[in-house]
Amino acid sequence: MTDIAKNVYNIETVILDDTHSELIILDQTLLPAETVFLKLKTQEEIWEAIYKLRVRGAPAIGIAAAYGIYLGAKASKATDYDGFYSEIIKLKEYLASSRPTAVNLFWALDRMDECVKRNKEKTVNDIKFDLLKESQNIKQEDIWVCRSIGEYGLTLLKPGMGILTHCNAGQLATSKYGTALAPIYVGHEKGYNLKVFADETRPLLQGARLTAYELNKAGVDVTLICDNMASAVMKNGWVQAVFVGCDRVAANGDTANKIGTSGVAILAKNYNIPFYVCAPTSTIDLSCASGKDICIEERKPEEVTEMWYEKRMAPKDIKVFNPAFDVTDEKFITGIITEYGIVKAPYSESLKEIFKRKRGTVQW
Amino acid sequence: MTDIAKNVYNIETVILDDTHSELIILDQTLLPAETVFLKLKTQEEIWEAIYKLRVRGAPAIGIAAAYGIYLGAKASKATDYDGFYSEIIKLKEYLASSRPTAVNLFWALDRMDECVKRNKEKTVNDIKFDLLKESQNIKQEDIWVCRSIGEYGLTLLKPGMGILTHCNAGQLATSKYGTALAPIYVGHEKGYNLKVFADETRPLLQGARLTAYELNKAGVDVTLICDNMASAVMKNGWVQAVFVGCDRVAANGDTANKIGTSGVAILAKNYNIPFYVCAPTSTIDLSCASGKDICIEERKPEEVTEMWYEKRMAPKDIKVFNPAFDVTDEKFITGIITEYGIVKAPYSESLKEIFKRKRGTVQW
Repeated sequence: MTDIAKNVYNIETVILDDTHSELIILDQTLLPAETVFLKLKTQEEIWEAIYKLRVRGAPAIGIAAAYGIYLGAKASKATDYDGFYSEIIKLKEYLASSRPTAVNLFWALDRMDECVKRNKEKTVNDIKFDLLKESQNIKQEDIWVCRSIGEYGLTLLKPGMGILTHCNAGQLATSKYGTALAPIYVGHEKGYNLKVFADETRPLLQGARLTAYELNKAGVDVTLICDNMASAVMKNGWVQAVFVGCDRVAANGDTANKIGTSGVAILAKNYNIPFYVCAPTSTIDLSCASGKDICIEERKPEEVTEMWYEKRMAPKDIKVFNPAFDVTDEKFITGIITEYGIVKAPYSESLKEIFKRKRGTVQW
Repeated sequence: MTDIAKNVYNIETVILDDTHSELIILDQTLLPAETVFLKLKTQEEIWEAIYKLRVRGAPAIGIAAAYGIYLGAKASKATDYDGFYSEIIKLKEYLASSRPTAVNLFWALDRMDECVKRNKEKTVNDIKFDLLKESQNIKQEDIWVCRSIGEYGLTLLKPGMGILTHCNAGQLATSKYGTALAPIYVGHEKGYNLKVFADETRPLLQGARLTAYELNKAGVDVTLICDNMASAVMKNGWVQAVFVGCDRVAANGDTANKIGTSGVAILAKNYNIPFYVCAPTSTIDLSCASGKDICIEERKPEEVTEMWYEKRMAPKDIKVFNPAFDVTDEKFITGIITEYGIVKAPYSESLKEIFKRKRGTVQW
């Protein structure tokens, strides 16, 4: 894994090996204690890696699934289109069952499906090659999207600034750069010497385990805090901007993201610190009118009451409320940073504009 | 321990046994997994219990230390005042070294010291009896203070209301009722059917381990949440008031309390939820002009990065900011509930008034 260890930021989450025969992923369930790369060959191995969150983060899951389709297609012994396509559909359904809520998973699988159908007239071998290109495109586009968010985000920063972030919307959640952390990585490349405060992000500690890990590995100045310390850090004048990722942006700008994000936004407003959401346009859902229409997943109490199911931290029969996400009202969001530029309120207009800009660009 | 288990709320933290020969404390380091009462006889055992946080919470520590002086005095073989008093002073210094920052500890030890000096003309045996009464008074006064805070606090509540609290300012931190939880317990007695949300309070999880435990034991409806879920709970309309304890209130009303309190106060303000600080007058420090004069203790990184020093949750070489307290600006505090009544802004005037009211009351 020397080549991987030597890339710019030391970490790449999802990689197709040079011989295009195995998928290499960083097992995120073992972080930060162990840095282990897994080599996945079979569809069962890829399904298990997504299901068990060894690979996580919507974009990274999509990329892994796309490569999963390619590897399954490559292994196919079918010689005619119909036999080949029925195998692809079966594989698509199988991989889709790994994480039923991850939107990018379905989006990536659909793209691979479309790729097969689009090239129906070609030989099976040629379609396999098209699937390789399509999966590689999905990854390359993600890198471009994140890089672009990073470049736009960096225009909001000055060298030496303090940045607070919540949860993990970094390289580990994407193919490279991340979304919320992209401006930080781009700034790091340009010698901005930014100082990052990472909320640990209870209950699953993605901030402590993943954000602190990847920024530290990349040589970025990062300080870990508990979620409830954000107010004190802001009050001390150590934070000049907040960057977070998102799971869904509604048409009015309301944004669903990891639980705790709305509280950070309210604190930022109180301390007059700009609060930015980093959102690939794929997460903007114009069919969703406002945050009220976003369903919030509630998860198991044990995530709160037990530490990795090893040690009980709370009374046995205690009631727990454990929402995975919350909705940040658009009024607390200074700007939404997309790969096509930064949009500001009124979001009901500016978000539509960004899609016009997107459609106006050349095909990838 | 049947008698203890049967008291109103099932838990009493610091008890002098019926024969006045041992101090019974609930070992809070084992909560919530185990409910173990320890019988302490020697000064070394009492010192260790305070030092290791087996007994914690400023009022509870003060009471334990006062009983420690009594038990030490009782065991004294001195027959003359000078010999007796020098033993008391030695004991006082020894117990004072157990928790150098707990103000109530020194206050309680000073009261016991004053009691000896005040009764200098009596026989040693009579002074021992006075020390018994003084230690019992300290505990009884604490119960009265907490009960009074509870009664005043309850005037702010209506049946069925939702209350959010942070950290543990309950019975476990006092002799009975607590401060922030006192209005909840008094309301519970009166059938108010309050619904409490307990912030888990990272890093040491006093909310999950202690507040959830004691409220649950008492039959109060309590729901445990991670600190970063307070905004979502408030947004859902489930909280009609916030009650927190305090470690120090400055003359202008700025209040130091467990880290995270200032964030909760800002959120409450945003959601138009009243935010109350429950403060025995012993925690109001008129010599301290504002929050800027309150020194904030920073604690070990391992509290954040490791779970009870058992499992590492963050990268090994990560920087951590771990303040034990933060300061809530007086502008976010709807009222301060003392044992002599509720004070509101402008605090620089109302806090002085409450001390006038205190001095006007009859001697205990």
